[in-house]
Amino acid sequence: MKSFMDEDFLLSTETAKEIFNYGAKNTPIFDWHCHLSPKEIYENKNPRDITELWLGGDHYKWRAMRGFGVDEKYITGDATPYEKFLKYAETLSYCIGNPLYHWTHLELQRYFEIFEPLTLKSAPAIWERCNAKIANGGFTPRELIEKSNVVCVCTTDDAADTLEYHALLAKDETFKCKVLPAFRPDKAFLIGTPAFVSWIEAMENSAEMKITSFEELKSALQKRIEFFDSMGCRASDHSFAYCPYTEATDEELEGIFKKALSCGTFTTDELDKYRTALLQFLGREYAKKGWVMELHLGAMRNNNTKMFERLGADIGFDSVDDYPIAEKLSRFMDSLEKDGLLPKTVLFTLNPKDNTVLGTMLGNFQSSEAQSKIQFGSAWWFNDHYDGMRKQLTDLASLGVLGKFVGMITDSRSFLSYPRHEYFRRILCELLGDLVEEGKYPCDIAFLSQVVADISFNNSKKYFGLE
Amino acid sequence: MKSFMDEDFLLSTETAKEIFNYGAKNTPIFDWHCHLSPKEIYENKNPRDITELWLGGDHYKWRAMRGFGVDEKYITGDATPYEKFLKYAETLSYCIGNPLYHWTHLELQRYFEIFEPLTLKSAPAIWERCNAKIANGGFTPRELIEKSNVVCVCTTDDAADTLEYHALLAKDETFKCKVLPAFRPDKAFLIGTPAFVSWIEAMENSAEMKITSFEELKSALQKRIEFFDSMGCRASDHSFAYCPYTEATDEELEGIFKKALSCGTFTTDELDKYRTALLQFLGREYAKKGWVMELHLGAMRNNNTKMFERLGADIGFDSVDDYPIAEKLSRFMDSLEKDGLLPKTVLFTLNPKDNTVLGTMLGNFQSSEAQSKIQFGSAWWFNDHYDGMRKQLTDLASLGVLGKFVGMITDSRSFLSYPRHEYFRRILCELLGDLVEEGKYPCDIAFLSQVVADISFNNSKKYFGLE
Amino acid sequence: MKSFMDEDFLLSTETAKEIFNYGAKNTPIFDWHCHLSPKEIYENKNPRDITELWLGGDHYKWRAMRGFGVDEKYITGDATPYEKFLKYAETLSYCIGNPLYHWTHLELQRYFEIFEPLTLKSAPAIWERCNAKIANGGFTPRELIEKSNVVCVCTTDDAADTLEYHALLAKDETFKCKVLPAFRPDKAFLIGTPAFVSWIEAMENSAEMKITSFEELKSALQKRIEFFDSMGCRASDHSFAYCPYTEATDEELEGIFKKALSCGTFTTDELDKYRTALLQFLGREYAKKGWVMELHLGAMRNNNTKMFERLGADIGFDSVDDYPIAEKLSRFMDSLEKDGLLPKTVLFTLNPKDNTVLGTMLGNFQSSEAQSKIQFGSAWWFNDHYDGMRKQLTDLASLGVLGKFVGMITDSRSFLSYPRHEYFRRILCELLGDLVEEGKYPCDIAFLSQVVADISFNNSKKYFGLE
Repeated sequence: MKSFMDEDFLLSTETAKEIFNYGAKNTPIFDWHCHLSPKEIYENKNPRDITELWLGGDHYKWRAMRGFGVDEKYITGDATPYEKFLKYAETLSYCIGNPLYHWTHLELQRYFEIFEPLTLKSAPAIWERCNAKIANGGFTPRELIEKSNVVCVCTTDDAADTLEYHALLAKDETFKCKVLPAFRPDKAFLIGTPAFVSWIEAMENSAEMKITSFEELKSALQKRIEFFDSMGCRASDHSFAYCPYTEATDEELEGIFKKALSCGTFTTDELDKYRTALLQFLGREYAKKGWVMELHLGAMRNNNTKMFERLGADIGFDSVDDYPIAEKLSRFMDSLEKDGLLPKTVLFTLNPKDNTVLGTMLGNFQSSEAQSKIQFGSAWWFNDHYDGMRKQLTDLASLGVLGKFVGMITDSRSFLSYPRHEYFRRILCELLGDLVEEGKYPCDIAFLSQVVADISFNNSKKYFGLE
Repeated sequence: MKSFMDEDFLLSTETAKEIFNYGAKNTPIFDWHCHLSPKEIYENKNPRDITELWLGGDHYKWRAMRGFGVDEKYITGDATPYEKFLKYAETLSYCIGNPLYHWTHLELQRYFEIFEPLTLKSAPAIWERCNAKIANGGFTPRELIEKSNVVCVCTTDDAADTLEYHALLAKDETFKCKVLPAFRPDKAFLIGTPAFVSWIEAMENSAEMKITSFEELKSALQKRIEFFDSMGCRASDHSFAYCPYTEATDEELEGIFKKALSCGTFTTDELDKYRTALLQFLGREYAKKGWVMELHLGAMRNNNTKMFERLGADIGFDSVDDYPIAEKLSRFMDSLEKDGLLPKTVLFTLNPKDNTVLGTMLGNFQSSEAQSKIQFGSAWWFNDHYDGMRKQLTDLASLGVLGKFVGMITDSRSFLSYPRHEYFRRILCELLGDLVEEGKYPCDIAFLSQVVADISFNNSKKYFGLE
Repeated sequence: MKSFMDEDFLLSTETAKEIFNYGAKNTPIFDWHCHLSPKEIYENKNPRDITELWLGGDHYKWRAMRGFGVDEKYITGDATPYEKFLKYAETLSYCIGNPLYHWTHLELQRYFEIFEPLTLKSAPAIWERCNAKIANGGFTPRELIEKSNVVCVCTTDDAADTLEYHALLAKDETFKCKVLPAFRPDKAFLIGTPAFVSWIEAMENSAEMKITSFEELKSALQKRIEFFDSMGCRASDHSFAYCPYTEATDEELEGIFKKALSCGTFTTDELDKYRTALLQFLGREYAKKGWVMELHLGAMRNNNTKMFERLGADIGFDSVDDYPIAEKLSRFMDSLEKDGLLPKTVLFTLNPKDNTVLGTMLGNFQSSEAQSKIQFGSAWWFNDHYDGMRKQLTDLASLGVLGKFVGMITDSRSFLSYPRHEYFRRILCELLGDLVEEGKYPCDIAFLSQVVADISFNNSKKYFGLE
């Protein structure tokens, strides 16, 4: 029996242990997709206690607690921090096989040197020890990022954002980790909602121009892309249930846009036409800049109206969608490739039923512009667990070129989430170790350690053009 | 090499063996979803022979025999019981890796103390031994249920049913196992078929009122829900290819209902509107009663018209559907949750492609009303095999709170099917054992044995409010 | 640790090794679905070098090279054969876990007696050794087929094909392997494209009749079926994203056909009606002949317009589709079964999300006409890798009668691809070995070796009626 989460956690073979030690253990992190707040990084406050650090905004943990039957009072309500911590500790013991169980203990081990399991019984002592550590300092965003060996972070920023904290951080030479913006113009797609109209106003301000037509919207976005690029942006980011694809005429698009400004309602066909044209425009601009386009498919958001009205978005009431995605995605990518303006693209899905579609879609649009120019993104969000990650790696290996994979993202809002990279690397090393130990790949430790370091860091550094 | 199906069947680690022995072996069964006949339980006849017991109505076995190329004569036709038994024995040897192989041998072991493999060669002797045992008695429905350590059975009953056998069984103090009805108003959804019109007549009789409008149908159903509740009902049960969701006005619904009474034909949109309104009404009533709503998604029934016309329904010509299910299911559940009238709900699917959708759908609607108020139902029917069960458990573990799972259902028409609970429990214990032995969960045998007993029995007992 | 790809490759248990040696090792191959060229078999030329043999037309390898970022010059362009070979060797090392890695090394071992890994470093010496072997002869199509222990090959032939090379091969008594045609009338389904109109002309020539109506097209196809049958054809082959099913009147069909002759455009509904009627007609004819109907579902072809215009079809720009397939497939099969004219059918899918649908669809239409009359085809094309094959076998085992499976196809354009049968057989034996070693099936080596030989050869020989 292996010990519980010891130094060889998830590594069951000698090969896996060796390539983890040589290729992964001391390799830095390039966190090219996350939701960390540049403002919080800039302000750099030490948290009050472990509850603030762990349960302040982590909807993964909130979901688990709700699934255990915990009252909202102890989740987002007015219970004391200690009460909330106890409820989480109690919940966790029942989350057998859940990635939260492993993330929580990796965080206790790596940042608090606590190696015993968190249970309702051990919770009071762990509460004390964590809070004593925190009180001693060392838990500010920048300290946690540096302690985690992160050399670059790409945040996620609205197209209208001023990027003022990125500017401030860029000037601060004491913080070695780069903090770059990533371009996320989600709101440009939200026609038919009030959020769209107010976002257009924000864009008019930030792009310093009137936006009264689809053509003008594109001009404004182009300006913002120039600005983001000047601030070091290397990537964009889009989230869709499925990739849109319906062609339309310019007149149709201007008609749709006019209606959007007056907050009209739209058919599915109109929405698809507008989204297609906008994403085509953006994709071409990204290609011109050499940016990476990240497409996150399969999320279904804000499913619980009552809780959305009470607490807003991103509070743990999202889940996974299941539309067919292959045909439209293929046609969309082809429409850019025809003009030679398909950017480097990372295809993510929340739904493992799509793994084969994405794993084979890559091959339709590869080229010598980059090694694995089209990437199958790592198992993400709901899919970011042991089996999900192992399956994404295995499917990519079976269908593509594993050695050129750009690897893990945190996709997190928490400064404690970097052990998820360690978790990913251990799973990767275990998979490669299994292939070697089962006689399916030659036992070349040096080469495989290099591949591990590449997938952990070097490939993404090169792919995103990080100097 | 492990011996063939010995006492440690499916248990490969010490941890798995220990928690099976402490947590599962002697834990009773609450069979909260099955298709056993209350009439047969009441009448309590000893079967004639092993062919009647095994092959009298078990369409799982019939399908396997047809797949082996056996002529219908030996399946549902006029061959002798012995001939049919031999054909099944011959078929079975080729069903390598099929759950029938394991169920058959578990049944031979647990009820007949026969531990050798059934083959064409061993069949004659096994035929003799089984029939000798049966002739000695002890194989009536009640004896088999009690021998299987079942404390409560929920049957599946039409909304118009008199529940007369439930009433008779409730009065019989000699039979310790509770037999409760479950409410299955499937026929209320069958508008556009002659079955609907005749069912409305049956409902008029049992609810003692005229049903000439959708409003009156709802009143009649409400009366029946009251009656079922008074008879101890704790659960309802619905089967759909996908959960309906299209909102409609009262006028539209009354128009659809009028057409249904005259046996008209319907568009997909009309069907969806009617089904949505009816299921919303029922869901709210279930919530008021504290009942559990079971939604079984993904079945495609009666695919072979020729055999349907010859033998009717439930004879082994059903299979698995593959519609997208996420969006409508989410909107439907949200429509009840908005009013605070979403009942406790168990979401089942026949298609493992839906596991991620269901496993994450839970989290959208959990609340402190119950621990894991929304449940991801166990791998069922075609999905009820080693890999399907392991996958459902793993997916639930990865996405939810495994420790609060309400566990296994038999979904069976056979009184010999209780070893399927043992099969499930062994798979559960093996999974938990693996997590411990691989260092992914602490080795806390007492806690894990409790979790096993909870998932096997206590959780469902509490969830369904069984006193 | 197992050695890299030694004689026990993929066989980790004693049981697996034994049943592979007894049941698989010397069992011949019936290659009942491939894309080998009868012309090339007839002409029987020795290749120039290993690049011609390996990289001349193998789009699997081309895709991998593109995914590694290799310029098209070194793939289909004007680089030297040696340069291309080096690029492939470099790519391959990064294809960890990809079936190409195993196929390449099996081919090096079985046809060249080279047992070391191919890397950029070992490539020059391997280039020399392979080419020296090739120069010595023994690498013509017929020699490779005979060396691979293949007793019959079914090629894939257009309905209008003259089958002249099949005729020539049939007369040649020196070549022991049968080469039979298979009927692939794909172009009959391509209404709305110019290819359809020119194909109709070809059919008019080969069927020696005018084709001015749908009725006449059916007559012409019937003639061709007669001819193919006289040439030993035992199978047809169709590829669809999903199986069509929409019923239409004769008038509608004639209207659609008229429009097709004048190269008009069609709605999805019209396409589906035409395809349904045509496939129903063909299916009934196949049934009358006792042919096997192969349905290959889930391919999405020619996704990259730019590369299609440059290089044509079948050059590595295809991928996997993801439509729901269950309902139409069921209705289509039922429409033939109603008349008693559903042929023996093999259902293939590229998308493993469909495994459960297909694995259960079988059971809807089995009959005593053949053992497992409806088959779930082996993991194919993009799905033809270790995990895909293991999953297809496991899903078939869980849902059907594994022992009557007709087994592996190569689906290949390369004369070196026969080790894929060995690869399949090893995976099959490992699976059966695991079931035995884990106590899930009795340790009956003789019976299991027979099952392995059946699945490898005897079942398909019987199923296709090969004398």
